[in-house]
Amino acid sequence: MGKAETRKISESTIYRLSLYYRALAVVEKENYTTISSKELAKREKLTPAQVRKDLSFFGSFGTRGLGYPVVELKRRIGEILGLNKIWNVALVGVGNIGSALVSYKEFVRQGFNIKLIFDNDQRKIGSNHKGLKVADMKELNKLVAEEKIDMAIIAVPSMAAQSVADDLVKAGVKAIFNFAPINLKLPKDIILRNQNMCLELEHLSFAMTNMGNKPWSK
Amino acid sequence: MGKAETRKISESTIYRLSLYYRALAVVEKENYTTISSKELAKREKLTPAQVRKDLSFFGSFGTRGLGYPVVELKRRIGEILGLNKIWNVALVGVGNIGSALVSYKEFVRQGFNIKLIFDNDQRKIGSNHKGLKVADMKELNKLVAEEKIDMAIIAVPSMAAQSVADDLVKAGVKAIFNFAPINLKLPKDIILRNQNMCLELEHLSFAMTNMGNKPWSK
Repeated sequence: MGKAETRKISESTIYRLSLYYRALAVVEKENYTTISSKELAKREKLTPAQVRKDLSFFGSFGTRGLGYPVVELKRRIGEILGLNKIWNVALVGVGNIGSALVSYKEFVRQGFNIKLIFDNDQRKIGSNHKGLKVADMKELNKLVAEEKIDMAIIAVPSMAAQSVADDLVKAGVKAIFNFAPINLKLPKDIILRNQNMCLELEHLSFAMTNMGNKPWSK
Repeated sequence: MGKAETRKISESTIYRLSLYYRALAVVEKENYTTISSKELAKREKLTPAQVRKDLSFFGSFGTRGLGYPVVELKRRIGEILGLNKIWNVALVGVGNIGSALVSYKEFVRQGFNIKLIFDNDQRKIGSNHKGLKVADMKELNKLVAEEKIDMAIIAVPSMAAQSVADDLVKAGVKAIFNFAPINLKLPKDIILRNQNMCLELEHLSFAMTNMGNKPWSK
């Protein structure tokens, strides 16, 4: 797939591709070799037309009447999403969330290999978490280069997050997965995704306050 | 504020209200008593017109030339978001993520009070997590009623999540915060928010695979 093609993929298409990918993994385990757009749509509560449109976008999968070949379709979506790659990851902040993430199996499954963990708390530095030794933030530059780190996970308190992000960018990290509930200011070429639990909580709180009102469409 | 007004609030407005709320908390700590739409916009990387539009929607805050009164504006946004309420929460699944969530201070700060934790693993039942005893899933119905639980957090593996969700709905829970990477099927009157780390990881992976391509606008 060429770069010109990937450029056009919207965020909502990527979201649906992720859904298809996981649905296909289930279908594969159920030993089906093909799946129709209708069945795939049903499993993910989408329309068959939407499924066909999404998949046609990436070339010609499937045959009318026979459906899509499960293994091949899964492999190609995985390729598009970059799930066949292994990324080297550094995690900064070994508090509650950070510690949980070190043992989060989904990271490994999706090719995110946590190779380094950092903290600035002297009591934590040198301690072991799932076979990894907590390194001092002072060694960030050196270790990020040595271990060829692609991405960093920020799991430090809000107050420290921007400064940690700046240090990571200086050290050469190209993508950041941020768990601190703040809007990080980063150079435009750095990829940023936020996992903002506070925002979700506020949505929940809002919805519960206005229960029965259904203020949004979903 | 009447229900007719909240009905019209879009998800993206709620998102921005959350941003304003946190910005105002910072501004309050900095001892400012008023803030202009321009300053508030700058802090959250929005346009002043957007800020004025969002805030005018909820009545007449602020005076031209003087700006918005910080404390009052924060209080009213908090009220709109339901942050002045206390919700009783049950957490199901005391694995890595579940354990981390029990100690996640932001829950308490936002009025989400975890009162019950459940698991179906005999080795975990009865053990202590931050002062809470892990209860058996078999007691869900009884305890959810006794403790007047409003919301549940699902932190179990994907395979178990739908069945846990069904049990929670049967027990009378009205809102679910789901950490399992699956699309839960729930009755329409149940409020559902997903915290899907897998989807975020796939977005990251996609972006990194196509690095330099900037496939989405943000």
